[in-house]
Amino acid sequence: MNVRDTKNYTMLCDFYEFTMSNGYFKTGMYKKITYFDVFFRQIPDGGGFAAAAGLEQVVEYIENLRFYDEDIEYLRNKGIFDNEFLDYLKDFRFTGDIYAVPEGTPVFPGEPIMTVRARAIEAQLIETFVLLSLNHQSLIATKANRIVRAARGRAVSEFGSRRAQGADGAVLGARAAYIGGCSAAACALTERDYSVPAFGTMAHSWVQMFDDEYTAFKTYCELYPNNATLLVDTYNVIKSGIPNAVRAFSEVLVPKGITDFAIRLDSGDITYLSKTARCMLDDAGLNNCKIVVSNSLDEFIIRDLLLQGAKIDSFGVGERLITSASNPVFGCVYKLAAVENESGEIIPRIKLSENVAKITNPHFKKVYRCVDRESGMALADVICLHDEVIDDSKNYEIFDPDFIWKRKVLRNFEAKELLVPIFKDGRRVYNLPKINEIRSYCKEQIDCLWDEVKRFENPHKYYVDLSQKLWDVKQSLLAKGN
Amino acid sequence: MNVRDTKNYTMLCDFYEFTMSNGYFKTGMYKKITYFDVFFRQIPDGGGFAAAAGLEQVVEYIENLRFYDEDIEYLRNKGIFDNEFLDYLKDFRFTGDIYAVPEGTPVFPGEPIMTVRARAIEAQLIETFVLLSLNHQSLIATKANRIVRAARGRAVSEFGSRRAQGADGAVLGARAAYIGGCSAAACALTERDYSVPAFGTMAHSWVQMFDDEYTAFKTYCELYPNNATLLVDTYNVIKSGIPNAVRAFSEVLVPKGITDFAIRLDSGDITYLSKTARCMLDDAGLNNCKIVVSNSLDEFIIRDLLLQGAKIDSFGVGERLITSASNPVFGCVYKLAAVENESGEIIPRIKLSENVAKITNPHFKKVYRCVDRESGMALADVICLHDEVIDDSKNYEIFDPDFIWKRKVLRNFEAKELLVPIFKDGRRVYNLPKINEIRSYCKEQIDCLWDEVKRFENPHKYYVDLSQKLWDVKQSLLAKGN
Repeated sequence: MNVRDTKNYTMLCDFYEFTMSNGYFKTGMYKKITYFDVFFRQIPDGGGFAAAAGLEQVVEYIENLRFYDEDIEYLRNKGIFDNEFLDYLKDFRFTGDIYAVPEGTPVFPGEPIMTVRARAIEAQLIETFVLLSLNHQSLIATKANRIVRAARGRAVSEFGSRRAQGADGAVLGARAAYIGGCSAAACALTERDYSVPAFGTMAHSWVQMFDDEYTAFKTYCELYPNNATLLVDTYNVIKSGIPNAVRAFSEVLVPKGITDFAIRLDSGDITYLSKTARCMLDDAGLNNCKIVVSNSLDEFIIRDLLLQGAKIDSFGVGERLITSASNPVFGCVYKLAAVENESGEIIPRIKLSENVAKITNPHFKKVYRCVDRESGMALADVICLHDEVIDDSKNYEIFDPDFIWKRKVLRNFEAKELLVPIFKDGRRVYNLPKINEIRSYCKEQIDCLWDEVKRFENPHKYYVDLSQKLWDVKQSLLAKGN
Repeated sequence: MNVRDTKNYTMLCDFYEFTMSNGYFKTGMYKKITYFDVFFRQIPDGGGFAAAAGLEQVVEYIENLRFYDEDIEYLRNKGIFDNEFLDYLKDFRFTGDIYAVPEGTPVFPGEPIMTVRARAIEAQLIETFVLLSLNHQSLIATKANRIVRAARGRAVSEFGSRRAQGADGAVLGARAAYIGGCSAAACALTERDYSVPAFGTMAHSWVQMFDDEYTAFKTYCELYPNNATLLVDTYNVIKSGIPNAVRAFSEVLVPKGITDFAIRLDSGDITYLSKTARCMLDDAGLNNCKIVVSNSLDEFIIRDLLLQGAKIDSFGVGERLITSASNPVFGCVYKLAAVENESGEIIPRIKLSENVAKITNPHFKKVYRCVDRESGMALADVICLHDEVIDDSKNYEIFDPDFIWKRKVLRNFEAKELLVPIFKDGRRVYNLPKINEIRSYCKEQIDCLWDEVKRFENPHKYYVDLSQKLWDVKQSLLAKGN
């Protein structure tokens, strides 16, 4: 089996994972049980929350995790690894536990969205791919959700494959965009492999291939009577594109009783052109004809177009969605939180930094989301030690971990655990939901956030607090200096 | 064979490629010979040039291009495609010609960096992947070159896998970064599959796994005496990181006569810390110890650090390189330039637009780079009709295609053709160069650009002009209105 032809990504890791792992192996530390947290520090675009995505690909990765002979040979040729370590890699499998938030969950800075409990060597080797997958898809799901919210109920299709950062950027980016609320994607492969509805009609080249625009439109309507979206800006939208579209619709489709068709605008002043197009279509009796627009859109331009009264039924969003162009990096990190000693006791670990924001939360933890029982809205998240239980039959006082005099009592709330078991002793214990379930769950959960958290400018900072016990552990490690 | 397990990207295309292709098939237009150009309109980050990359993956894609049964079934289930078209896809292969600039070539807006001459259906179906590959890798190669130039001779390693937009974003991004001038990448897979040297030593977790920082450092030096780069910012750089590193180097490596080692700074005030580190290392007699820095670097921060006198020997650049964060989209488009009629005559096609910048250059073309014979520097590129020849034994007058009174006579120059044949009648006629050859070629070619073209702020706009004949063809199509 030629590994280069597969989607086995075991070798997609930073080289230092191998130097460290070989070191853990040689020092006998490799069996030490470690706890690593995945969390992020900043929400892209200054937003109020992010949407977690990419877990399904982490699960596939973990299940496929193994080294092929050519991987071992590659490592052997580096001349710095022990033969015993390389032999050990031949039978390497992941045997640990993974907890994670389900895909589509709204998440906030500082809280673990995944926790890995595994032997040092196993936990270390998976770092790069775990981060890559969660970072990429959470980035795009979060951006897509912003754009979908800006469109206020109008459909948004993902159109950006050609500008994506690589093939997975296109395909899994479209998957993440769908989770975040897009209705469809242009990419056929994403439909075939990930059940994201594909949408698409014609490029300018279709129109240019014919001797005239009208014949191009008429031919298309004859070929796809139930799916005709005509691109009207190859020559001149107002003078030729819309009149030719109106003629094609009226001559080919309307006589067949078909009224479900559309035009697409892909350049020019979209507000002016869409309003003019709407008038021309209505004047021709084509009130049902939809107007689709595309061309360098994002959440801000969509919001502006709608504020200006542009007549738009749906949006196609390309490069600025598929790369999250205004903020193309999601910053999840993978940090050691604890190790177990020989007797199985969990010893918390902390990463200090002169930059206070880079100090980690130590220990094996869980996260509660506290939801108001009356309104159903999310009030705060609380990060606790793994064996703590928040008793939501009583009031619970939360406090700001930095400014501890800021306190608030939660009343009549339900405490829901965010992290669910995904792997236990290397076996998957989680049923992967279907993409439509993830998408619905994402929408439901985001609907539980107050509008103040969801606005684009200066969103309210959602509370993510530490339990008193966790706060105490952290303070004692800070006082010790390591 | 399960297609999901392969890197066959035939189905990675916008769905409209299929609706159009089916249309070309049913109308009998599919055999019509078409000419499509790949070109871009804007240079990322306002730079003066871009570095082309991604051709090798286009070649692999074209050579692997075929539909599997499950692809055909997926399309059949859409219920809108003709059975004859689906049967035709079973034996579909690319049978056309492709011309492209070699990877690493500096390229400029408006000029074709690839031209596809093929039957309509073949040229159409490859659009999405061709653009995706060239856009992604040209983006990263261009960004990497900016960062490498800012580093003024110091090595730059690509460290961003974990923040890349998908697996290909990481692996092929690292490949492109190497083409653009990086010296190494963190990703092991990129070394195994693309021969990009891998580099990496330790994460903070290595240090945290040990009871104390010194033991972590000492152990690492013992394991990797010839490759020790110690990460000194887990606790406190000045108070513990550097003193512990100095002790480990002095006790473990220096007695063995090893002086080739380094420290890495990954947080804090890099200028201050690197200067202080340099003093501390020199005071300890470790003058050969290198200082590597990382942490959210890009070309501007690197330029500033060096201007401030930071003591840095090499850079690790992560998220801002692997996503080209300040400008994460490369905007190549794929536009119809001509079709052949039944008698094989080439009929030019143009895409008009109210946005003048979006009007295309019609016809089957070639591109000359005019190089000064004395200095070896590039003077101007001239886009010509395919059968034109620039006679560089004589003077040649170029003119600005928009402001035609702006004229300049080129003297004593050599006219070099930029586009080389890659495929001829579906067969590859181009030997793919090795990655190190591409990287050297890229550097050589960029060395032929004047500093004025290479500066970051307000670079000189390199001339890309049209020959008189091409200009005439374009004007006549503009006058006709299509």
